[in-house]
Amino acid sequence: MTQTRPVFFVSDGTGITAETLGHSLLAQFPDTRFRPHRMPFVDSPDKARDCAMKIRDAAVESGQRPIVFNTLVDPDAVAGLREADALFLDLFEKFIEPLENELGQRSTHAAGRFHGIAESQDYKRRIEAINFTLAHDDGVSHADLAEADVILVGVSRSGKTPTSLYLAMQFGIKAANYPLIPEDFERNKLPVELTRYRGKLFGLTIGPDRLSQIRQERRPNSRYASIENCLHEIEAAQRMMKREGIKWLDSTAKSIEEISTIILQEVRLDPPSY
Amino acid sequence: MTQTRPVFFVSDGTGITAETLGHSLLAQFPDTRFRPHRMPFVDSPDKARDCAMKIRDAAVESGQRPIVFNTLVDPDAVAGLREADALFLDLFEKFIEPLENELGQRSTHAAGRFHGIAESQDYKRRIEAINFTLAHDDGVSHADLAEADVILVGVSRSGKTPTSLYLAMQFGIKAANYPLIPEDFERNKLPVELTRYRGKLFGLTIGPDRLSQIRQERRPNSRYASIENCLHEIEAAQRMMKREGIKWLDSTAKSIEEISTIILQEVRLDPPSY
Repeated sequence: MTQTRPVFFVSDGTGITAETLGHSLLAQFPDTRFRPHRMPFVDSPDKARDCAMKIRDAAVESGQRPIVFNTLVDPDAVAGLREADALFLDLFEKFIEPLENELGQRSTHAAGRFHGIAESQDYKRRIEAINFTLAHDDGVSHADLAEADVILVGVSRSGKTPTSLYLAMQFGIKAANYPLIPEDFERNKLPVELTRYRGKLFGLTIGPDRLSQIRQERRPNSRYASIENCLHEIEAAQRMMKREGIKWLDSTAKSIEEISTIILQEVRLDPPSY
Repeated sequence: MTQTRPVFFVSDGTGITAETLGHSLLAQFPDTRFRPHRMPFVDSPDKARDCAMKIRDAAVESGQRPIVFNTLVDPDAVAGLREADALFLDLFEKFIEPLENELGQRSTHAAGRFHGIAESQDYKRRIEAINFTLAHDDGVSHADLAEADVILVGVSRSGKTPTSLYLAMQFGIKAANYPLIPEDFERNKLPVELTRYRGKLFGLTIGPDRLSQIRQERRPNSRYASIENCLHEIEAAQRMMKREGIKWLDSTAKSIEEISTIILQEVRLDPPSY
């Protein structure tokens, strides 16, 4: 019988960092089943003790010792949390001290200072990028394409929209996207709006079977979704990208995280200093 | 003079986990300037040694000892990376061993097994959610609203679209969103399409000054953007949400991460087991 381990992500903020790292670590143990619980905004010793109570309850209910990922730093809150019996993995505590020693500074957490994410330059840049990407999805607007960091091109349903949104949301990249359509292949030319921005173009391609399957879900039994048409469009798009010197990648077996990371490498978009 | 510290995020995958945690940690040291470098797909000792070379170059160029966040686990790759002189913060290594001991299992990394993100159930759920959210942005479709995990409501530009996309992308939540418009306030009724789904509704409100400022950027000097009109719409929306028993929050000073986390708490959407 498979036991299900309770897992808690505890943070004085949103807990998204704790959950991201925790999830990556737990993915290394596919033979265990985990039941995750989010515990955000645990910003006082009292709330930490409430949290410890929930951890204890989960231990009793499951008959399993819980695993707790936490980014708390305040010693009183940490002590409150540790009133429960669990495997505690302190994601911040382990690294703050070596960073303080290296930089010769106290961290703001230790000093009791805290600034909301929403105030930061980095955050404003991400929100601007999301708005830009939504306004430049699927070729709907050519205005301000000069502002784009990258312009994704590819046949319909090759993964351009989710990749563009991920680039904007995670990395603050202004990512426009532009479909390559049968008319472009007949004229055998890049859409004229794009020729000025050749240096910003990046192509996505996809396996014909996968493309046909995705298009079938949208428009079952259409010519659009047929394997012959998918094959034809993909070949025509790849010929065009090759001729125009556009870099591209095959999105078939890749996640939007992987696709986005490869694009950033290829177009050499390192994060800005902060 | 402010020195700029080189920072490296090294991973055998996308490095997004390393960057997320690293960024949170460095944000605790606002008095130091950091210059980040992404080093994804470092999946061999050779690539790790190339990386060490870049770390050394950055040290020489900046005159500063670099900081390296890494999620490598393979001992040969770790040894290759450590040929450079830097502060190394091993984000995985520290936690894999206690997890192996607790679970009584080797991790797949240690065992040399690796599955791409793109194959996982969790990933498929996220992509489905993104497609759902895009198809149900700004009230464009009422089809399948029964499938929504949550339906955000609020006046135009109160933050519904970016929040919906973040909920979908980060958490795999099917988040529709629906605007409350002057016609709804005149009729003094919820849009009829929504009345069936009252239990899924969650409201966003926003301060009138901030709303007016955001709307000015879209339509300068319009009645739509005027402070009087913003104030009127916000009051009418809040009255309606109060009367209909819809929970809401004020998005004014909050990031989409914070807004999303609060919504998940309020509607009690814990992640599925995995």
